[in-house]
Amino acid sequence: MIKKVLIANRGEIAVRIIRTCIELGIETVAVYSAADKDALHVKLADEAVCIGGPKSADSYLNMQSILSAAVVTNVQAIHPGFGFLAENSKFARLCKEMNIEFIGPSPEVIDLMGDKQNARDTMKKAHVQTVPGSDGILESPESGIAQAKKVGYPVLLKATAGGGGKGMRMVYEEDQFIDAYYEASREAQNAFGDNRLYMEKVIHPAHHIEVQVLGDKFGHVIHLGERECSMQRNHQKVIEETPSPFISEATRMKVTQAAVRAAEQLQYESAGTIEFLVDNDQNYYFMEMNTRIQVEHPITEMVTGVDIVAEQLRVASGLPLSYEQADIQFSGHALECRINAEMPEKNFMPASGSFETAHFPAGGLGIRVDSAIYAGYKLPPYYDSMVAKLITHGDNRAQAINRMLRAVSEMTITGIATNQQFQYDLLFDEAFLKGNYTNDYLETNFLPNWLQDHQTVTK
Amino acid sequence: MIKKVLIANRGEIAVRIIRTCIELGIETVAVYSAADKDALHVKLADEAVCIGGPKSADSYLNMQSILSAAVVTNVQAIHPGFGFLAENSKFARLCKEMNIEFIGPSPEVIDLMGDKQNARDTMKKAHVQTVPGSDGILESPESGIAQAKKVGYPVLLKATAGGGGKGMRMVYEEDQFIDAYYEASREAQNAFGDNRLYMEKVIHPAHHIEVQVLGDKFGHVIHLGERECSMQRNHQKVIEETPSPFISEATRMKVTQAAVRAAEQLQYESAGTIEFLVDNDQNYYFMEMNTRIQVEHPITEMVTGVDIVAEQLRVASGLPLSYEQADIQFSGHALECRINAEMPEKNFMPASGSFETAHFPAGGLGIRVDSAIYAGYKLPPYYDSMVAKLITHGDNRAQAINRMLRAVSEMTITGIATNQQFQYDLLFDEAFLKGNYTNDYLETNFLPNWLQDHQTVTK
Repeated sequence: MIKKVLIANRGEIAVRIIRTCIELGIETVAVYSAADKDALHVKLADEAVCIGGPKSADSYLNMQSILSAAVVTNVQAIHPGFGFLAENSKFARLCKEMNIEFIGPSPEVIDLMGDKQNARDTMKKAHVQTVPGSDGILESPESGIAQAKKVGYPVLLKATAGGGGKGMRMVYEEDQFIDAYYEASREAQNAFGDNRLYMEKVIHPAHHIEVQVLGDKFGHVIHLGERECSMQRNHQKVIEETPSPFISEATRMKVTQAAVRAAEQLQYESAGTIEFLVDNDQNYYFMEMNTRIQVEHPITEMVTGVDIVAEQLRVASGLPLSYEQADIQFSGHALECRINAEMPEKNFMPASGSFETAHFPAGGLGIRVDSAIYAGYKLPPYYDSMVAKLITHGDNRAQAINRMLRAVSEMTITGIATNQQFQYDLLFDEAFLKGNYTNDYLETNFLPNWLQDHQTVTK
Repeated sequence: MIKKVLIANRGEIAVRIIRTCIELGIETVAVYSAADKDALHVKLADEAVCIGGPKSADSYLNMQSILSAAVVTNVQAIHPGFGFLAENSKFARLCKEMNIEFIGPSPEVIDLMGDKQNARDTMKKAHVQTVPGSDGILESPESGIAQAKKVGYPVLLKATAGGGGKGMRMVYEEDQFIDAYYEASREAQNAFGDNRLYMEKVIHPAHHIEVQVLGDKFGHVIHLGERECSMQRNHQKVIEETPSPFISEATRMKVTQAAVRAAEQLQYESAGTIEFLVDNDQNYYFMEMNTRIQVEHPITEMVTGVDIVAEQLRVASGLPLSYEQADIQFSGHALECRINAEMPEKNFMPASGSFETAHFPAGGLGIRVDSAIYAGYKLPPYYDSMVAKLITHGDNRAQAINRMLRAVSEMTITGIATNQQFQYDLLFDEAFLKGNYTNDYLETNFLPNWLQDHQTVTK
């Protein structure tokens, strides 16, 4: 087993990784920016190295600085957490060159899944259904129109070199196609120097369903079930749960098997997540793969008892996974609510300041709180606004929700505004309680009503 | 289901009961002494009533005051927690007279189990083996000597009306018998106005093994497995775990079945614990029954997933238990470390003051922290010194211990001394790690060595 690990991250995920390392007897090195010297991950690690200024680019994205820290502290591996360098194949390659184990898949797999058309092609090889669309690059607007007829409107034109929404156009009917095609093409040319487009059918309304997979260096792949992550705002997940209250047993079987096939095709190592869109008729389509641990991994841990970080560390050590698929038993239901330092009533503007009190509902049965804040901690304004994850587990969904209501209402954070009230109200939402909400529900239904009620009160 | 409950207790157990009530949608009334107005249980309950001065006798033991609070707030039931009035049959009777449900067994059962000779007789009826000894009251020292010969020395002479160690004498050999008999007899007469004695064989060395039972008003009784509670100092448990690493599967089967027979014999309602002594040859003997919830109940909750307080509330509401015996699945291993505000190196003298920081290791997989303290909280000097329970769960004992090591080392309490270091060191003790320690081990082996090491350091 690896004996010493550097955690190239901050906040609750850094703390969460350190905790498992302590349990496994692995020494830890924290890295921190100048703004993070009082951060909990620095206090909990065996060693800590300052890697630069407060801005992410100067510290948590500063590969040279992080690799220097790794060399100086003589670690065998680097855990990138999520965000920052977690899906940066260049960083993974640099680690490899320096003979340091990057805790994640190979750089080639990171690249393959980072390119959208490549990812679609790989999934097709693994017989995993992708969103219907063009057969590769569109050769002309006419060819596009012919293919759009087959898949059905609305369709989404996308730049194959794309990212960040650039070179992307929604087309609702045939009349709009040609204009949209040339606009997207020009935009792609300007942004990426590559005007090639492909096309996908718009799946709407849809559920965001993702499958957690684990693979080792011996070609073994297992899945740990799915997560329902449709409660989103601005493409950020707000509440996650497992199992999905929406998908059928047949769909569950299909998406988990598809995810295993995909990961096997990739000879996938470490933890990864395969995201699907599932429509109201239970058709499912590959969306993308996240080649790292995810924010919402704890709900999967709660229902399976598997410590996903521990498995990542095992795999990186060259050991086989601790589990065969048949060992994985799913028990009960788990939920996660993300607590952010933000003001929902003010367009979710980030909040700042110091935590005066920070009381978490950590006791009782079926509650877990992953957080890196403490009373007296000053929140640096440079990073993500997520400050805690409340995670509950119950024999069934109703029990998990009741425990979450208790957890959210008991949590006491003062000094900094959070989305606590927003989360509390969302837990009482009818569509949420029924367990049938699509990925546009929060923004188009819940939020407008909530804002109306809430902004009146705060005027 | 009951709609409103008064919790006649304080500290972490009051908080723990309130948490389950919130999850079940039951309104809560806290009671508090003048010293407890800032206590967490007061903050978390829907209502709170001051019931008297700081001393327990003036508040948490003040039946009139508590019952008045119950009437004023119109509750349907009172949960007594543990300690204070939890095993006071007079209080249970007063509740009944006032048509308030006492959450626990009937006053008759409390009385029956409170009298040691009666409890032994009841167990015999249920075919549960008791510690070998005299057949009821000793008629003369000569009769005692004859019976002691049969059971074997050492024996313990006990006052049938006894309690608090009064009227109790250890007899190691026959020559000491007569003197010990008259001493114990006189002491019993002075203390209780009743000089009658009975006799028990001393089981030594022994394991303290207890079985959690639940019963409802329909005569259903189930057990939730056993707990190993042999790590004790001054008759106080220090670390508890389940399953016991010492007893065999056959013994586990026997003690759990014996506990169920005993509870059935008693038509036992609510949660109770039947305590056994188990010798090195796996012989087991009934010791006593606690007719209430216990401090260490969370470890049983962690391995079974059963919320014991929720079951108590169901039973008190006249509902059947949620589980049949066959529904109870045991999963993995759980440990509890009691964190006390005390100074082990100074003969465990209670510590006092305010908590400056109170960081608990509440995140990660398999950790639970039941506590009622928070940063800034001033600990009143009037009550029990236990301030937190660290509870961990793992797939197996090694994992639960590793998680506990992490939890104990991560916990950060400043402002008040605790037994944190003592617990940390105990987790590394060889006998503990081997899982074979008897109820005298901590005091006669671990503690002398620890004190020697530790007092040298602190000189």
